[in-house]
Amino acid sequence: MFQPARGTRDFLPEEMRKRNWVLDNIRDVFEVYGYEPLGTPAFESWDMLKIKSGEDAINQIYYFKDKSNRELGLRFEWTASLARVVASHRELPKPFKRYAIGPVWRYERPSEMSRREFWQMDVDIVGVADPIADTEVIAVAVDCLKRIGFEGFVIRLNDRRLLEAFIEVAGLPKERYLDIFRAIDKRDKIGDEGVMEELDKVGASVDASNRILELTSTKGDPQETLEKARVDVEGLPNGAKACKMLASIVRLSENFGIEPYLTVDLGLVRGLDYYTGPVFEVYAKGYEEAGSIAGGGRYDDLVYLFGGEPTPMTGVSMGIDRLVPLLEKMGVFKDLEFGPKIYVATPTDGVKPKGVEIAQMLRRAGIPVELDLLSRGLRKQLDNANRRGFKKVVIVGEKELLDGCVSVRDMATAEQKKVKISELVDEI
Amino acid sequence: MFQPARGTRDFLPEEMRKRNWVLDNIRDVFEVYGYEPLGTPAFESWDMLKIKSGEDAINQIYYFKDKSNRELGLRFEWTASLARVVASHRELPKPFKRYAIGPVWRYERPSEMSRREFWQMDVDIVGVADPIADTEVIAVAVDCLKRIGFEGFVIRLNDRRLLEAFIEVAGLPKERYLDIFRAIDKRDKIGDEGVMEELDKVGASVDASNRILELTSTKGDPQETLEKARVDVEGLPNGAKACKMLASIVRLSENFGIEPYLTVDLGLVRGLDYYTGPVFEVYAKGYEEAGSIAGGGRYDDLVYLFGGEPTPMTGVSMGIDRLVPLLEKMGVFKDLEFGPKIYVATPTDGVKPKGVEIAQMLRRAGIPVELDLLSRGLRKQLDNANRRGFKKVVIVGEKELLDGCVSVRDMATAEQKKVKISELVDEI
Repeated sequence: MFQPARGTRDFLPEEMRKRNWVLDNIRDVFEVYGYEPLGTPAFESWDMLKIKSGEDAINQIYYFKDKSNRELGLRFEWTASLARVVASHRELPKPFKRYAIGPVWRYERPSEMSRREFWQMDVDIVGVADPIADTEVIAVAVDCLKRIGFEGFVIRLNDRRLLEAFIEVAGLPKERYLDIFRAIDKRDKIGDEGVMEELDKVGASVDASNRILELTSTKGDPQETLEKARVDVEGLPNGAKACKMLASIVRLSENFGIEPYLTVDLGLVRGLDYYTGPVFEVYAKGYEEAGSIAGGGRYDDLVYLFGGEPTPMTGVSMGIDRLVPLLEKMGVFKDLEFGPKIYVATPTDGVKPKGVEIAQMLRRAGIPVELDLLSRGLRKQLDNANRRGFKKVVIVGEKELLDGCVSVRDMATAEQKKVKISELVDEI
Repeated sequence: MFQPARGTRDFLPEEMRKRNWVLDNIRDVFEVYGYEPLGTPAFESWDMLKIKSGEDAINQIYYFKDKSNRELGLRFEWTASLARVVASHRELPKPFKRYAIGPVWRYERPSEMSRREFWQMDVDIVGVADPIADTEVIAVAVDCLKRIGFEGFVIRLNDRRLLEAFIEVAGLPKERYLDIFRAIDKRDKIGDEGVMEELDKVGASVDASNRILELTSTKGDPQETLEKARVDVEGLPNGAKACKMLASIVRLSENFGIEPYLTVDLGLVRGLDYYTGPVFEVYAKGYEEAGSIAGGGRYDDLVYLFGGEPTPMTGVSMGIDRLVPLLEKMGVFKDLEFGPKIYVATPTDGVKPKGVEIAQMLRRAGIPVELDLLSRGLRKQLDNANRRGFKKVVIVGEKELLDGCVSVRDMATAEQKKVKISELVDEI
């Protein structure tokens, strides 16, 4: 028997309905915020994917050649394709606010939480250097998460330029900043000692390593944390710019209604290495151990790297494969009703054509209907309707048909009443 | 500058909105008919894809190896993955009615109408041998197409077993049936002479070739055409079965409300070679030259080929990449309104925070809102709102704010009125 390819999985209807419910709600919020859909292909040229991805990412991309030996790769996230479109379509009015929802593929070590095919839902704002854009995308994420049932949040905010300034302040080798970021990024996993070892490898002294660990340890109240950062990076222009930008985000977060959730975390890195300014992650309060449920940041260099005009960009990404299990744990789905609710039962083969007509009448009135297709007996049809959670069964009985009627059975109460076919749509 | 990979394309927002509108409407009809979503991965094992696809298809599949040298391929249609799931999940209750919507990939010679990435929308019924299932899936397609604006249809119906019987009746070499099907399938493109040449290659005599061309020429009124077929295949059990099944579909088509569109076309083949019974194609009346806009058929062998219990299946597929250009030609989109309709304009930087709050208030009430993010002057903001088709602009003026008010400007009439912020949601 064939199985899904390693690292991928199937979603049977019960689970798929939940996923679709999440996707639909999130898309709705994206549109309420004025984001526009952009469609880009599942695979892109390898040359292009290479530019965007760090070395780690290159190892994660599914690479292949088409039959004309073109080198291609499956997209591993959404922003490279966005940057390509922005670089080559100068006519796009700015700000360009776009959303993208769909699968991305990474050749990762598969586990329950990280699969090789997973769905990402992104919004990005193209063409706005002002921190109002960063604040907006954080607010979009929070509103999406609220819409699907999350309540409390912890937003961790930082700025890549602050991290760079800390490297300078601590006296670490600037040119190794990516390796240093990577080490700090793993602090939760490998602990301080692990970070010290990694920093030793890039040639940092013990003093410098201790210093950067200290500098990146502060987190919590936005005002206080920023105050400390301001002092720590004094005299470094990029550090000061970062503090100013973060302060604006903190201020605007009140207007956007996300201020209660905001913290500044001077140790936040976010793995991918293309960020150029603010970065952030959103956690569900009480479920922090599940990891971030949204994250993003500013990447003002990407369009330029792709051959376009320098264009500021900032965005946020959410992964449905993380959200659904959490929502499940929170019990969000148990009150939702999915699937058709009316079952048309035909006790004899003779009434089947009439059953079809009644089902079609209801469907064309927009009512989701299932019809027996197997010529089963009435008892089996009712059992089936019951097991699958149908609320009402329309029984097309020969006797009732003579009066132009059917029986409508309420599956919860087992009550049954006779209804004129002409009044059935209204009745239901 | 990077381009999309050859044979693929981007969809900018204007086009993407139309696509989403089509997808949403069609999904809605799928659900009204009681179909359930099933999610399967974009790539499958090569061994599995090979079983399903004919030789032609193998040349069309994007093949690659993952980093552990597993042989994989991108899905080139939806039913192979469905058959895999059905074969390995015996617990799925039958009938299992599933829908799938998403991209598939084929390495075809790219043209305006055939791209290497295209979206297919499928419904299939698993576990029903009765022709009620075939009739239902045709009705689903017709209702989907009606919902998105198509009016008249021509449904062409045939049965693979009839074609096989014709091969026998005409005295063609039975074992070459796939090649013969392929030749007849191309009749519209290569003409009778072209078909004769192809049939010559499989060793058919001129007489036999003439005979099969004659047998497969009849089409039109279902009753008459079936009557002729019945006579032609007399004495061949599978031919008789096919006629009986088609007659049932014709009868049921009345109950399903698709009878006015139905024709029987004894020359219809449908390229893919796994069909085992009825096959059909749907054309838009008046746009027949655009090719079929829906098509499908019965394939009772597939689950068994995939290692499962023999399980009857029938289904229909629609391609959005064909539908959207046709709908465009028909003018369906010009009356639809897409995108946000309210623009919040902030004449000065000082009112921007208040503008954000008002935008957020409206968005949280479910109203799609765009907000100036670029600190442009009022005139530029109004121009932008106008160009992008916003219906109303909420102007957050400093003076009005003092009274707890804003101005609401109707962009069509240029009328402007003062509205209390507390009443703004209701006003809009």
